[in-house]
Amino acid sequence: MEYGLGKKAFKDWVVAEVSFSPDMLGKGEAIMYLGNGYMGLRSATEEAYLKETRNLFVSGTFNKAEQNEVTELPNLADVTKLDIRIDGERFSLEFGETKDYVRQLNVKTAELTRSFHWTSPKGKELEFLFKRFVSLDNLHVIAMKMEVESLTESVEISFDSGINAQVTNSGSQHFLEGERRVYDRRFVQLVQTTNESGIDVVHNTAHKVFVNGHQVNTEPKMDMSRRKVWLTYDLTLGQGEKLEVEKLTTVYTNRDKEFDKPTYELSQLREHGIADLKEAVARGYDNLFEAHRTAWQNKVWNVYNFEVDSEDSFDQLALRFALYHLTIMTPAHDERMGIGAKALSGEGYKGHSFWDTEIFILPFFTYSNPHIAKSLLTYRYHGLAGARRKALENGYEGAMYPWEAAWPTDGEVTPAWGDVDIVTGEQTKIWSGLIEQHITSDISFAVYQYYRVTGDEEFMTNHGYEMIFDTAKFWASRLEWNDKKEEYHINNVIGPDEYKEHVDNNAYTNYMAYFNLKLASRFFEKLKKENPKRFTELDNQLSLTKAYPIWEKKAEKLYLPKPQEADLVIPQDDTYLRLKEIDLTKYKNQEGVRGIYKDYNPEQINKIQVTKQADVLVLLYLLEQTFLNEDYRFSYEVKKANFNFYEPKTLHDSSLSLATHAILANDIGKQELAYSLFKEACEIDLGPYMHTSDEGVHAASIGGIWSAAVFGFAGIRIKGNQLSIHPKLPKHWNRMNFTIKWKEQPLTITISQSALSIKAESKGSIVCEIFGKLYSFENEVEIPIRNIQLADI
Amino acid sequence: MEYGLGKKAFKDWVVAEVSFSPDMLGKGEAIMYLGNGYMGLRSATEEAYLKETRNLFVSGTFNKAEQNEVTELPNLADVTKLDIRIDGERFSLEFGETKDYVRQLNVKTAELTRSFHWTSPKGKELEFLFKRFVSLDNLHVIAMKMEVESLTESVEISFDSGINAQVTNSGSQHFLEGERRVYDRRFVQLVQTTNESGIDVVHNTAHKVFVNGHQVNTEPKMDMSRRKVWLTYDLTLGQGEKLEVEKLTTVYTNRDKEFDKPTYELSQLREHGIADLKEAVARGYDNLFEAHRTAWQNKVWNVYNFEVDSEDSFDQLALRFALYHLTIMTPAHDERMGIGAKALSGEGYKGHSFWDTEIFILPFFTYSNPHIAKSLLTYRYHGLAGARRKALENGYEGAMYPWEAAWPTDGEVTPAWGDVDIVTGEQTKIWSGLIEQHITSDISFAVYQYYRVTGDEEFMTNHGYEMIFDTAKFWASRLEWNDKKEEYHINNVIGPDEYKEHVDNNAYTNYMAYFNLKLASRFFEKLKKENPKRFTELDNQLSLTKAYPIWEKKAEKLYLPKPQEADLVIPQDDTYLRLKEIDLTKYKNQEGVRGIYKDYNPEQINKIQVTKQADVLVLLYLLEQTFLNEDYRFSYEVKKANFNFYEPKTLHDSSLSLATHAILANDIGKQELAYSLFKEACEIDLGPYMHTSDEGVHAASIGGIWSAAVFGFAGIRIKGNQLSIHPKLPKHWNRMNFTIKWKEQPLTITISQSALSIKAESKGSIVCEIFGKLYSFENEVEIPIRNIQLADI
Repeated sequence: MEYGLGKKAFKDWVVAEVSFSPDMLGKGEAIMYLGNGYMGLRSATEEAYLKETRNLFVSGTFNKAEQNEVTELPNLADVTKLDIRIDGERFSLEFGETKDYVRQLNVKTAELTRSFHWTSPKGKELEFLFKRFVSLDNLHVIAMKMEVESLTESVEISFDSGINAQVTNSGSQHFLEGERRVYDRRFVQLVQTTNESGIDVVHNTAHKVFVNGHQVNTEPKMDMSRRKVWLTYDLTLGQGEKLEVEKLTTVYTNRDKEFDKPTYELSQLREHGIADLKEAVARGYDNLFEAHRTAWQNKVWNVYNFEVDSEDSFDQLALRFALYHLTIMTPAHDERMGIGAKALSGEGYKGHSFWDTEIFILPFFTYSNPHIAKSLLTYRYHGLAGARRKALENGYEGAMYPWEAAWPTDGEVTPAWGDVDIVTGEQTKIWSGLIEQHITSDISFAVYQYYRVTGDEEFMTNHGYEMIFDTAKFWASRLEWNDKKEEYHINNVIGPDEYKEHVDNNAYTNYMAYFNLKLASRFFEKLKKENPKRFTELDNQLSLTKAYPIWEKKAEKLYLPKPQEADLVIPQDDTYLRLKEIDLTKYKNQEGVRGIYKDYNPEQINKIQVTKQADVLVLLYLLEQTFLNEDYRFSYEVKKANFNFYEPKTLHDSSLSLATHAILANDIGKQELAYSLFKEACEIDLGPYMHTSDEGVHAASIGGIWSAAVFGFAGIRIKGNQLSIHPKLPKHWNRMNFTIKWKEQPLTITISQSALSIKAESKGSIVCEIFGKLYSFENEVEIPIRNIQLADI
Repeated sequence: MEYGLGKKAFKDWVVAEVSFSPDMLGKGEAIMYLGNGYMGLRSATEEAYLKETRNLFVSGTFNKAEQNEVTELPNLADVTKLDIRIDGERFSLEFGETKDYVRQLNVKTAELTRSFHWTSPKGKELEFLFKRFVSLDNLHVIAMKMEVESLTESVEISFDSGINAQVTNSGSQHFLEGERRVYDRRFVQLVQTTNESGIDVVHNTAHKVFVNGHQVNTEPKMDMSRRKVWLTYDLTLGQGEKLEVEKLTTVYTNRDKEFDKPTYELSQLREHGIADLKEAVARGYDNLFEAHRTAWQNKVWNVYNFEVDSEDSFDQLALRFALYHLTIMTPAHDERMGIGAKALSGEGYKGHSFWDTEIFILPFFTYSNPHIAKSLLTYRYHGLAGARRKALENGYEGAMYPWEAAWPTDGEVTPAWGDVDIVTGEQTKIWSGLIEQHITSDISFAVYQYYRVTGDEEFMTNHGYEMIFDTAKFWASRLEWNDKKEEYHINNVIGPDEYKEHVDNNAYTNYMAYFNLKLASRFFEKLKKENPKRFTELDNQLSLTKAYPIWEKKAEKLYLPKPQEADLVIPQDDTYLRLKEIDLTKYKNQEGVRGIYKDYNPEQINKIQVTKQADVLVLLYLLEQTFLNEDYRFSYEVKKANFNFYEPKTLHDSSLSLATHAILANDIGKQELAYSLFKEACEIDLGPYMHTSDEGVHAASIGGIWSAAVFGFAGIRIKGNQLSIHPKLPKHWNRMNFTIKWKEQPLTITISQSALSIKAESKGSIVCEIFGKLYSFENEVEIPIRNIQLADI
């Protein structure tokens, strides 16, 4: 990968590759994927290669390909492939000679371009330029452009282009065959329906062909075969002549809000889609692009206003890359949809949402773009029905959130069974859907964080309180009384460290359940006092008055593993500290993840002191952002002891791990380590490993890039009711600035090695804890950076 | 294609290609496909290419991928693909340099081999040899072998090999995900079930690896992903060292007779499949091959004993090629299964059986291997239930056979709708399933022919009579009384010429319906007299006594278009002769088929005097083989007049057309034309056109190759109750010989330019009409060939 190709206005905005390898296509396809939250288009090249993966996903269009499977995001028909022939021979970079190959994703304009000089096997020289974007201006539009210039002599160029629905999800087909049409020998339409959820999807596509800048009205040949419809264009280019082809596509589904209503008929979708396509064709690639570029400037860059002046400009690019991906992965347009663990960039995890969203992605939106955070939390609110069903099915009360979530009403969609163990021949049970239960309090934490940062009382009234109360009801019913110890335990769970299955009293799980219960108590009192009407409604619905004393009582008696006196280590669970220790050096230093599986099977790993990802450490990081901080403010020494104990045992085999570690390393003063962990986190997708993103980007780790910068280096936290800022800029950074919103007030924060400034847009005084001291200011404050003492933390 | 590569024992047994083109893979994949009637394995190369089509079909495993579709043969998981890497780079003939490339199908041994000398992009030289066969000895076994020799220096060679179920039928997935296992780190198993018909399919595969002739027990890496399981082998070959890898596979389904019973459990299939694989592994490629080769010799070549001594040895090869394909396309092991229009070589026509079987393929088996003919006719007997249902649904009585047939009880499986007309946007209705009705009498004809040739009274008693009676009942109910003309008509049909839809009184349809009715009458009388018990059974079941007088009465009044007085032309239907004539030269001379569609749409073609394929001419050819010959023995002049009238209007846009024309051209003395039409028929698959077999071979035209030789050049026919032989050998042929069975008696017929000899195996006298004269002989007769007069025909 190349990071330095952006020049001038695009300096540190461009991710590029300057060579082409047909065996390493997945990387570019995934990390350079295009999207707008409505849809995600994996960046497979126009010409086909054996190892390519062509994907187009539309958020929320979940379908079960077969009854025994769980629902997943189906791979939609492809419009990106062009079968190009030069003088009758298939064009491919595997043939002929390629020079000056550059593929670049400009994250500022969200446009992907690819250019190269190609000499055909017959010796003819051609200049190629491909461009494409998925519009942020009109969420339904995919625009592509191909430019070919014949440099040396006359060439015959022909290409097949259309809509290809022969694609699958690794062989699983989600769509009925559907219908293909060509209107006016020009407008190509595919209509398909998912085979279980019955979602209609309509693709429309059309071409505009120019030679030397003049539009030509060549009549293409039309053809169709099973699940495919395409046009064939044949042209001759004289020496120096240039062909430009625009391919414009619209995609609509009746899951789109405007169609998802009782009066819906398929004809509406067809007609709207084709009308929209005709408008797109009338405007053309360049005008569409201008609207798209402007949307990115206004809706993204002007809002986040994020800049890093680092001695390594990769850092700036990585943060922009993160903001780009956080934007395109998020279905901000529809509060019935969540973020998939692989975003919209690959089949991995089937488009399902995990705790990844609430703990690693949502904080970005909560602080930077709260209306999107609200949408994502409302998605969880719509998921209450499924969460209540899950609780009931498992013998509990209240709302037990699904470990994996798809369409809100689907409930739990974690596959029940994984691959067969290829050695024993037995199918492995996937336990996370049953016993990885911390997701429920993770969502409560996210609601709490959102409320603290935004003060959005309306959201809380309509959605938030209900979520908190009903999750607390779950935990109250979940706790198990231990007669001997006379306390409540939470047995047989998986914590964040998924290398430990069926453990008792996972510290993270217990503390977060405690938080959830205490939070419900607080909100009970608050709501009763401040909004008796809503309180009465929820009391009637959820029997709060009966539940409240139980929350209090059980929380008080819930076992919370304390730091051990001897070494301050908080036991990850009841047994972890007694497990066998092995030398992990080999696996810590390996490229790629899960190398330990080559030597140990899951059962063996369960019995070793080895941790997949931050577990106790995530707890430390979350806890201090809550009101519990007052009771459980783990000292600097506790943080340090646990970091030093757990980090060496942690393989970071989940992409969720590094950013948390970076934040905590910064907290405990290991700033060089923090910076290098931040860089490692940035490299999970953006870095040089060419196969780790094949199944899709790592959405949570991308959220983690922002978190590491803002919660880590900029030291942003909630403290009690205040915003707290305690920056510790890496010494490699001269300056960082960004805008967050605190209680609806945009605050632009600029941090240099010597000063911190906060600028508010509106009037009225702002109160902020800065370096541990309360400041009140209007409009702007600038504070020189002191020599930071560790004790300040 | 190369036809002359077979040497010595294999002279004229080998079809080969001596260059590799990644853009023309379909041809070799289809025409060199391997099979044994149980399964068909398309010959995609081991290493993958973009435009490949990997297919494995097992006869009879029909499934509807979705409710609105018709049932089809699903594409089973692939075992042929090997991902080979040489020094870490993907091996492909698109890279490096390839010399001495030869791929050959030896039709005598039914083995496919591919060899070449390859220089890697890094300059290392390797010798490759691939071999494979699908066993005729054990119908469940696929055996493959790869040999690689490192010529110049040490190379790293690694390959992934396993079972890949990510395949589809052009995007339609027939299988649930299923289960993948590896037993003993060696035996790879895939278990899948079709998603509608619930057929279990179990693949088992294993490898044997040798270096320099010594088996090595290298432990492969194991891996699986969705619908895929595979092993990875890594080896180093020193200079001059040779790697041999055998990959042995078994395929079983519970549609297999031995498992298709109430006591069936999936575990049986799994255990039997893996036990069979273990036995195959113990025997190894070479021993398995020897058993396979012997089976081909004993079950095929010794039975048909077919030789042609031609000045163009292509003719001999073409006939062997035809026998090869007739063998592998035919599910001779199971009378519940028919032959697909594309055999088992491609997705085309979904594995469905058409009249192609009865009119163009069955005659070969009826004359040469009658127990297989019996199996194929029994398949139609099992289809009676579906045929009765179709009659009922269309308002008729008796048995109306489906135009397209799949599993016998499925009934009509012709798709109701075709592609949308890409210009008008309207979906085109497929009429053949409703109004292409001649299939019903085609099947009756085949029963009649089978009975005449074999004298198999048992088949007739158990199956044949019932088929004839019930099809006659259909026709009796189908005829329409025309008040004005006071005769029965058959209106609104499609005849064999599918370029004419909705015609009235298609000559072929009317005559064949008449034949069906008259045949039923005859059999009624015969059965009543000869087997009163069976007669009474069938009478009770089908009310024959009531039906019989209607057959007679209606047949007498059925309009049969006579040759016109002026020109002896039999009108193809009521309107054909009044249609517009156009200049067809352009389309007659075109390579490929259906060129007329580029200038006219189906509606326009319906109004032009243009014929897709033999229509009246097939009638003339069939009629004279029946007892109707006595009444409707169309004179030589009628034959000639109709040939001369219709042939120029016939585009041969169906592969069923040429062989019939060859036979008739021979009949009317146009021997050079006959020979050149025969050659054209041979070239449909075997010839140089590189894309016409992409969707699969043309099963009927392959049957036609044999028919043109035996019914044409050898002049074999039924005349009344006698076998008639009237050879007219092409002047290019010195000799032909073959064995047929007449009334269970094998007759070996040898024809040279100067003499005809017939040799019987057993004793007893044989009666035969030779050159129009009755001969009676024992053991052998030899007759000098006279100077044939046209009047002899």
